[in-house]
Amino acid sequence: MQKTPLLVEKKNSLHKSTFVVRDRIVGARDFTLIAGPCSVESKAQILEMAAALKEMGAHWLRGGAFKPRTSPYSFQGLKSKGLEYLKEASERYGLPVISEIMSETQIPAALECCDVLQVGSRNCQNFRLLEALSELRKPIFLKRGFGVTVAEYLHSAEYLLKGGNEQVILCERGIRTFETSTRFTFDVNSLIVLQEKSHLPVFADPSHATGVARYVPRVAKAAIAAGADGLMLEVHHSPDKALSDGNQSLSFKEFSAFMDEIRPFISAAGRSLEP
Amino acid sequence: MQKTPLLVEKKNSLHKSTFVVRDRIVGARDFTLIAGPCSVESKAQILEMAAALKEMGAHWLRGGAFKPRTSPYSFQGLKSKGLEYLKEASERYGLPVISEIMSETQIPAALECCDVLQVGSRNCQNFRLLEALSELRKPIFLKRGFGVTVAEYLHSAEYLLKGGNEQVILCERGIRTFETSTRFTFDVNSLIVLQEKSHLPVFADPSHATGVARYVPRVAKAAIAAGADGLMLEVHHSPDKALSDGNQSLSFKEFSAFMDEIRPFISAAGRSLEP
Amino acid sequence: MQKTPLLVEKKNSLHKSTFVVRDRIVGARDFTLIAGPCSVESKAQILEMAAALKEMGAHWLRGGAFKPRTSPYSFQGLKSKGLEYLKEASERYGLPVISEIMSETQIPAALECCDVLQVGSRNCQNFRLLEALSELRKPIFLKRGFGVTVAEYLHSAEYLLKGGNEQVILCERGIRTFETSTRFTFDVNSLIVLQEKSHLPVFADPSHATGVARYVPRVAKAAIAAGADGLMLEVHHSPDKALSDGNQSLSFKEFSAFMDEIRPFISAAGRSLEP
Amino acid sequence: MQKTPLLVEKKNSLHKSTFVVRDRIVGARDFTLIAGPCSVESKAQILEMAAALKEMGAHWLRGGAFKPRTSPYSFQGLKSKGLEYLKEASERYGLPVISEIMSETQIPAALECCDVLQVGSRNCQNFRLLEALSELRKPIFLKRGFGVTVAEYLHSAEYLLKGGNEQVILCERGIRTFETSTRFTFDVNSLIVLQEKSHLPVFADPSHATGVARYVPRVAKAAIAAGADGLMLEVHHSPDKALSDGNQSLSFKEFSAFMDEIRPFISAAGRSLEP
Repeated sequence: MQKTPLLVEKKNSLHKSTFVVRDRIVGARDFTLIAGPCSVESKAQILEMAAALKEMGAHWLRGGAFKPRTSPYSFQGLKSKGLEYLKEASERYGLPVISEIMSETQIPAALECCDVLQVGSRNCQNFRLLEALSELRKPIFLKRGFGVTVAEYLHSAEYLLKGGNEQVILCERGIRTFETSTRFTFDVNSLIVLQEKSHLPVFADPSHATGVARYVPRVAKAAIAAGADGLMLEVHHSPDKALSDGNQSLSFKEFSAFMDEIRPFISAAGRSLEP
Repeated sequence: MQKTPLLVEKKNSLHKSTFVVRDRIVGARDFTLIAGPCSVESKAQILEMAAALKEMGAHWLRGGAFKPRTSPYSFQGLKSKGLEYLKEASERYGLPVISEIMSETQIPAALECCDVLQVGSRNCQNFRLLEALSELRKPIFLKRGFGVTVAEYLHSAEYLLKGGNEQVILCERGIRTFETSTRFTFDVNSLIVLQEKSHLPVFADPSHATGVARYVPRVAKAAIAAGADGLMLEVHHSPDKALSDGNQSLSFKEFSAFMDEIRPFISAAGRSLEP
Repeated sequence: MQKTPLLVEKKNSLHKSTFVVRDRIVGARDFTLIAGPCSVESKAQILEMAAALKEMGAHWLRGGAFKPRTSPYSFQGLKSKGLEYLKEASERYGLPVISEIMSETQIPAALECCDVLQVGSRNCQNFRLLEALSELRKPIFLKRGFGVTVAEYLHSAEYLLKGGNEQVILCERGIRTFETSTRFTFDVNSLIVLQEKSHLPVFADPSHATGVARYVPRVAKAAIAAGADGLMLEVHHSPDKALSDGNQSLSFKEFSAFMDEIRPFISAAGRSLEP
Repeated sequence: MQKTPLLVEKKNSLHKSTFVVRDRIVGARDFTLIAGPCSVESKAQILEMAAALKEMGAHWLRGGAFKPRTSPYSFQGLKSKGLEYLKEASERYGLPVISEIMSETQIPAALECCDVLQVGSRNCQNFRLLEALSELRKPIFLKRGFGVTVAEYLHSAEYLLKGGNEQVILCERGIRTFETSTRFTFDVNSLIVLQEKSHLPVFADPSHATGVARYVPRVAKAAIAAGADGLMLEVHHSPDKALSDGNQSLSFKEFSAFMDEIRPFISAAGRSLEP
C-alpha cells in the first residue's frame, strides 16, 4: 500500500468532493436517490418505470443493460438496445440515467446514453477497465467488491482519480461473510470509514446488501443515519416477474411508502430530498 | 435445526416481548440506553461514572466485574468486589445495573448485585451456562457470538426460554469478517432479521462492533434507524487510561454530545429516551 | 496481546512438547489416530465401536457424553452415564478415552473416566473453564473456536499452561467462512502457523472441518502432509442412524479403507501409526 | 443457478478432462508443476529463471507481464515486452509458458507468446473477458476469485466451456477469511469439492494462498495429498529484491529443496513428476 497521500484521501475533516449531475449536487446537502429495475427489460417497461419513479420522487434512473450474471444461462441484458431505451426514458422524464458497463468495449455506447457510468462489484478490481474510465470526464459510480477491503477499494478509486477523472462515487453494497440469513452483509462500519478517510461521496445499496426486499427500507434508514450521501435501490413494476433480482426489488407501492418512511431520517441527518 | 416453532419465534408481526426493569419498559416505545466502563476499576471510578451517566441521561449502568480476556495476562476484573461497587453505585444513583458472568459459579454473586445478567459474545454457545441462567427469573442480556449465525443465536436464546426464563434481550455486537479497518463488522442486516423472526427485544453494541470510539455515534444512529430497542455503549471518565477497551470508549464529553446527536433519530424511529 | 514470550511459544525450531498417553507419545514420531462416534449412544454401541476401532488400528477412542448442541431440543448426550460406558470400553479394549466437557462442574466425572479431556470449539474462549482445567494434571485437547484467530487460540492455550497444565493438544477443526459447499473451511494454513509458533502438538479434525464423510479422507491426507501430529475422526457403526453428526461420520468399512489409504502419506510425512 | 447439468459437471466418478500441453498431459497421472517469478522484470531475469527452473524440474514457466496491482502506483508489469521475453525463454529452454491477461485487448499479444492464458483471481467474474476467451482454442488457467464460492466459480468456468473452449484448468488460490496470520486461507475443502463436482483439472497456488514463502512447501504437500492435479508456485532468483510478491516467493535453493521434499507425497498420491 502507498504511504504518500492518495488522491482519494481527505486532506482535512471538511474536505468533501461535490459535483453536479443535472440540477442536483452529489456529496453535499442534497441526498440522491437512485431507483430503477435491476435490468432494462423492454422499452415499455423502462418508460413506465421512469414515469412512476419520477412521480414518486426518485432523482436518478438506474437500469442494467449489460448484466454481469453468475451463470452464462441467465438473462444477460438488452445490451446497447437497453441503453437506448434508458436514454429515451431519461429524455422524456428528465431523469439522469446510470447504467453498468463491464468492459472498455462498452464505454462508447454508455457514454452516448448515460449521465453516470457504473462499475459493478465484480469489476471493482478490473484495473484495465478502471484505467479506461479514468480518461473520461463522466461521473463513475464504483461499487465496492464484495470481497474487497476498504483499503483496497480506495486504491481502486485511486486508479480513476490518478487518470484524471475526479467525479467518483463510492457505494457500499454488502460484503461476503459467514452469515446466510441475508445474501450479503451490509457493512455500515465501512461506509463510515470510507467517509472518514476519503473526500469522495459514499452511497449505499441496500437491495444488493440484503437480497430481500422487505429488509431494504430499514437498511436504507440505517445508511441514511450513518451519513450516506445517497442510495441506490432496485424497484420493479412487478417484482415477481422481474428477469433478474426480483426478490430484492421494491414494488411501486413499497417504494412510495418507503419515500414517506425515510423523510424523518433524511431530516435528522441534515439532508434534503428536494429538487 | 428445529422445525416446530421455537419459543423465541414471533407468532405474528405484532408479537413483541416486553418487560419492566425498574421504571422503564424494555421492548416497547422506551428506548434503553446502557452506558458505563468496560471494567469496574475502583469504587471511586464507578461512583463517579454512575453520577455522570445518570446526569447525562443513561438509563442503565454497565460495568465488567468478571472480564473475559483473550490473554490470561490482561486485567481480569475486580470480580465479586466489582459487583459490590456496582451495587453501591446503583443504589446511590438509582440506575439499574448490568454485568457479565462467565460461569454458573458466578451466578449467586451477580444475582445479589445486578438487575440484568449479561452473557458475553464468547459464551453465546456456552450451553451449560445458558441452562443455569434459564432457571432464574432475572433478565438476561445475551450477546451474539461474533462467529455465530442468526439461526444459531436464536437457538441459544431458546435455551433460556425453554428453561422458563422469558426475560431475554438479544444484542448484535459485530461479527468477524475479512474487513480489518474496524475490529468487527456491525451486522445491521441481522439486527433486522432478528426482530423479524423473534419477539425478543434486540439491542446493539456499537462499541464492540467497531472497536473505535469515533465511529460509535454513527453506528449507533444506524442501529436506532434500523429499529434497535436499545444500545449498550462503553463510556469512560478517561478513555486513554482505561484498564480495558479504552480505544472504543467515549469520554464524558463525547457521550454528552452523543446524547444530543441521537435525539432526532430516536424521534424519527418513534422511540423515546424520556423516563 | 502479550509482547513478552508466551509459555505456548516455541523457543527454537526444534522445541516441541511431547507427552505419553498410555504407550504412545503425542507430538513425536508417533502419529495419533483418534476415532469414535460423535455421541456415546448406548453401552452396546460404544463397546462394539471400541472393539472394531481397536481392530482397525485406531489409537484412542472418542465419544461425546456431554454434547454441546446448537438446539436445546437435540440429543444432549448420555452425560455421566456415557462417561461410564466409555470407561468400560476403554478397560475392555485397552484404548485411551477422550471426551468433551462443557463446564467445570463436569470435571470430576470426566477425570474419573477419561485419559484426555476435550474442550470443544464453542468453549475455546470459555476462560473460566480453561482456568479450572489448568489446575489438573491431565492432558487437555483444546479445539480451535470456529470464529477464533490463531493469535487468540494460542492465548486460550496459554490459560492452560499458565495454570500449570503442560499437556495440551491443539486441534484445527475448520473455521467459518463465506463458502457454503462444506460446513466449515479446514484452515490448513493455520495448522502450519500453529506448529511454527508453538511447541504444542497440533491435530486436525476433518470430520467437523468438512461436515461431509466422503470429503474426510482427502482432508485427512492433506492434514497429514501438512505435518499434523494426529487426527480426530468421527466413525459410526451405522452413520445414517447416528443420533448426531451422521453426515460426517465414516462407516467401519470406510474407516478401514481410510486406514489403508493414509499409510503412504503417514510414511511420506516421516510418521508412524504403529504401536 | 442453473438446474440442468452444466458443461463443467462430472457425468460420473471417472469423468475427467485431460489435454496435452506440449509433451505432458494435464489432468491425468502427470503432475504439473508451474514455477516462475510473480513478474517478468527483465529479459536477463526471465532467461536466468527459465534455465534454473528447467534444470530443477519445473514443467511450465510462469511470469506476469500484465500485472493486476491493488495500487496504481505499484509496478504494473512490462506488458507486451514481458510477453516477448517469456516467449524467448520458452523457446530457448523448451518450457511452456503461462501468463495472465486482464482484458480482452491483451489477448492477441498473449496468444502470440503463451501456451496457456491465465485469468487472475480479481477477474474470475469478469464475464466479458471470459466470453472473449471462450472463443479461443487455447488452454485457460482460471483462478478462483478470493471472494467467490465454489458454485459461482464453476459458473465462471461454464462461460468458457459454453463458448466452446474445453481446455480449462481451475486453481484454488486461497479465500478471504477473518484469519490474519496468513494473507489468504487455502481452502483445501473446495479443491476437493471442485474435483468431485467437475471433470476439469484442479491446481493449487500455495504462494498466493499463504503470502509467506516458508509456509508454501507444507501447503503444497497438503494440496498434493488432497489430490491436486498440479501446482503453481512463485520462485524468484532473489526474493528480497523482487518487484512484486517477494515475501511469498521461494528462492532457487528453497525450490530445489522443495522438489525433493514433495517427491514422496507425489508418489503417495499416485502421481508422477517425470517428463
